Amino acid sequence: MTMTRQMPEADVTPVQASSITRWDHEADVVIAGYGVAGAAAAVEAARSGADVLVVERTGSWGGAAAMAGGFIYLGGGTGLQKACGFDDSVDNMAAFLNVAMGPGADAARIADYCAGSVAHFDWLVSCGVPFKAEFFSEPGWEPMGDQGLMYSGGENAYPFNTIATPAPRGHVPQMSNKKQGEASAGYMLMKPLVETATAAGARALYDVRVQSLIVDPDGRVVGMRARQYGTEMAIRARRGIVLATGSFAYNDAMVARYAPRIAGRPAASIEQHDGQAIRMAQALGADLAHMDATEVAIFIDPQQLMRGILVNGRGQRYVAEDTYPGRIGQLTLYHQDNTAYLIIDNDAQEEAMDSWSPKFMLRQPTWVADNVADLERDIGLAPGSLQATVAAYNEGAARGEDPLLHKKTEWLRPIGSPIGAIDLRENTGGFTLGGLHTTLNAEVLHVNGEPIPGLFAAGRSTAGLAAWGYASGVSLGDGSFYGRRAGRAAASARA
Amino acid sequence: MTMTRQMPEADVTPVQASSITRWDHEADVVIAGYGVAGAAAAVEAARSGADVLVVERTGSWGGAAAMAGGFIYLGGGTGLQKACGFDDSVDNMAAFLNVAMGPGADAARIADYCAGSVAHFDWLVSCGVPFKAEFFSEPGWEPMGDQGLMYSGGENAYPFNTIATPAPRGHVPQMSNKKQGEASAGYMLMKPLVETATAAGARALYDVRVQSLIVDPDGRVVGMRARQYGTEMAIRARRGIVLATGSFAYNDAMVARYAPRIAGRPAASIEQHDGQAIRMAQALGADLAHMDATEVAIFIDPQQLMRGILVNGRGQRYVAEDTYPGRIGQLTLYHQDNTAYLIIDNDAQEEAMDSWSPKFMLRQPTWVADNVADLERDIGLAPGSLQATVAAYNEGAARGEDPLLHKKTEWLRPIGSPIGAIDLRENTGGFTLGGLHTTLNAEVLHVNGEPIPGLFAAGRSTAGLAAWGYASGVSLGDGSFYGRRAGRAAASARA
Repeated sequence: MTMTRQMPEADVTPVQASSITRWDHEADVVIAGYGVAGAAAAVEAARSGADVLVVERTGSWGGAAAMAGGFIYLGGGTGLQKACGFDDSVDNMAAFLNVAMGPGADAARIADYCAGSVAHFDWLVSCGVPFKAEFFSEPGWEPMGDQGLMYSGGENAYPFNTIATPAPRGHVPQMSNKKQGEASAGYMLMKPLVETATAAGARALYDVRVQSLIVDPDGRVVGMRARQYGTEMAIRARRGIVLATGSFAYNDAMVARYAPRIAGRPAASIEQHDGQAIRMAQALGADLAHMDATEVAIFIDPQQLMRGILVNGRGQRYVAEDTYPGRIGQLTLYHQDNTAYLIIDNDAQEEAMDSWSPKFMLRQPTWVADNVADLERDIGLAPGSLQATVAAYNEGAARGEDPLLHKKTEWLRPIGSPIGAIDLRENTGGFTLGGLHTTLNAEVLHVNGEPIPGLFAAGRSTAGLAAWGYASGVSLGDGSFYGRRAGRAAASARA
Repeated sequence: MTMTRQMPEADVTPVQASSITRWDHEADVVIAGYGVAGAAAAVEAARSGADVLVVERTGSWGGAAAMAGGFIYLGGGTGLQKACGFDDSVDNMAAFLNVAMGPGADAARIADYCAGSVAHFDWLVSCGVPFKAEFFSEPGWEPMGDQGLMYSGGENAYPFNTIATPAPRGHVPQMSNKKQGEASAGYMLMKPLVETATAAGARALYDVRVQSLIVDPDGRVVGMRARQYGTEMAIRARRGIVLATGSFAYNDAMVARYAPRIAGRPAASIEQHDGQAIRMAQALGADLAHMDATEVAIFIDPQQLMRGILVNGRGQRYVAEDTYPGRIGQLTLYHQDNTAYLIIDNDAQEEAMDSWSPKFMLRQPTWVADNVADLERDIGLAPGSLQATVAAYNEGAARGEDPLLHKKTEWLRPIGSPIGAIDLRENTGGFTLGGLHTTLNAEVLHVNGEPIPGLFAAGRSTAGLAAWGYASGVSLGDGSFYGRRAGRAAASARA
């Protein structure tokens, strides 16, 4: 298609290079988005000798990564795992991910990622990302201090602990001063990566919104249209373009069409994640994958989760409460109609309140009753349903077993009274995991199955490791891993 | 993109009209696929005065429709509903569909479809589609005889019977001789539609596989490349093209990327459903919707389902057994990890065996035991789990109530012994419901939000009424309804 007419801002229709009268900026490799994928791409492209320009929509680098908890999912025997006393292997890591990343997970991508994981950790360290060799044990969404390693995907919980040898793989950059909130772990990841990219020669242009791709007559991507402070510009990429603008979690129309269950509840994402790069590439015939996949958090502290039992709208337990809370979020939103109640007795609630979790994270029971029958009626559950569930749980817990869901023995204790319930209906949120379908070299694939020449992508604008499943750190992990690939591939593409 | 190089067969990259040296066939409106959407489009386009050519991949018209059970989901007070003594209204039908078609269902499309439903029924009748004014009551997947009307979406079961006034909307064309299997209801739908299209002047070309779209310099679709017996051809559409080639249920790569849970279990579909039209339009920048949505059947006769209780891998009930079995299939595949066991006692099993369902449809128990505890152990369920479930069910059934799931009183009876269980693990299959994102006039939408000039689509190559939810008859319903719209819109498009 040759399209030279004036477009409204939202129009992502590709533009023919012949219609461009002036190139406002030019580089060998042009990267859209200065989050973790863009920064990793910038480092590698610049180190490959390419002239690199990063265009970023906001006023600064960082993206969603800089605001994140900072987990990077790595394993197979990283230096940090070894320093903390954990054994792991490439095969063991892959065995876990092939199941935990859900139906439809791409086994070839997982194998590739696991095989390169130790080297990727070393690369991050070589870029100056700091990791403290200290393990943080659960429960918690993330370490309370500056510890560097934590379980982040339910590796040590049922059913994953029966599938692979548990090993923690959540690698967390060390924060200089977490308690005062002066830096997030994500910031401590981004800052050294951007400094490394800058030192290697990468330039950056801020407040630039990318609009559409520019192609030459044989379909090769040679540039991008963009806007800066309302001014249209054309940016030429002599070798390649890397799309790294993040997910579509904040594009309501795309969410409605592709991931409707997460509609209205974006979390752990940023408003800039509007799917722009996905649409720009789709307009060129790019293929997609796993568009329905989402990360899902459940808004309850694991200190409470693990000490209670979680039941659905039928009063039934459905997941081991001591697994990765993101998995609990997914199962609750998708399989239990976003309806859950955490049943917790007074003693367990007090223990949680006395734990290391900050008080503001912990929730008070919505209902409190003297016995299960009363609580069941107060919540509005079917008569007898919660009573049977608690009776079965208590019977097993009394002998240290959970035959139904295999919660670990250390968290099993019969539920006594007074007994409370925390209302967890509509208490989930998350971000989208699907996006452009790419090769392991971060080339964007056309629906005809061939790479689109000159076009590369990484991060949450692409479908990565996760399909219907997740572990904290997978997004920063595959974003940085395939961001590097994208930078190298773009730098070596035909000029 | 200008693409004139020779393509391998799978290449769906659009071709510039300027590269076409000869048009092998030509018509005002060219329709790809002669199933229900294509036939409805052909009738309306031809009746609008357009010269119409239908190209069909197989040796004959019919598509998946001709092999289907033939349900067409219609309501709002059709002649057939009235003749069978049922009240319905447009609003009542929409209230049901807005919930039953699942999260993400398109309320505007549902409103549009419901408003036109009575007229669409009349149109089918005017085309010669026969309906016998007789209601068939459950249980069963479809009528056992030639009855014309049946519940087909759980309208009269919980929770839908609390949301809208139950009305049956599965309209089934009358078969001339069902028992001898000489005609399916789907055939009785297709035959008159094709005869009507032919009488109106529509031509057909068989054994033609469409390959890619042909566009003029301003992006308008003006034709298709295709192959017949290995010979390449170019087909010109003076006014518009209608894509009606069905779903992507048999495209393994697409299923893996978009609907992985249904991978390896296509059902009620045909092998020609390879997503070709979806990919052809994607290559032009067409947008998609609801690609993860699927119809799911569970392979068990409703005569047995309704007489037993269905439990998941934790021994818990999760759905009223007397609802639409397709809903049970969806909930089982997606929410219960494709694991279910039907618990049925000897008396209920004998009743099912004596019912109108053919013997070969009914299954024998996988396990039989003298009591629930033994059965629970034989299946391998957690100790006590099934016992608690049966005890709770029996306690309610004895007084004619099902407080947990609200199965209708007529199907409630305490479960006695001997007791059996039918293994329903991995006993589901289905077809994909997602596809091209279209307007209510069946225009194919580009990712920039505008219709692609000259391109229309209907049927299961598009996202229709259903998102994450289904009722039997929705596919033939929206396929024929929006097929008509596509035919009219293409016929009136700028020449």
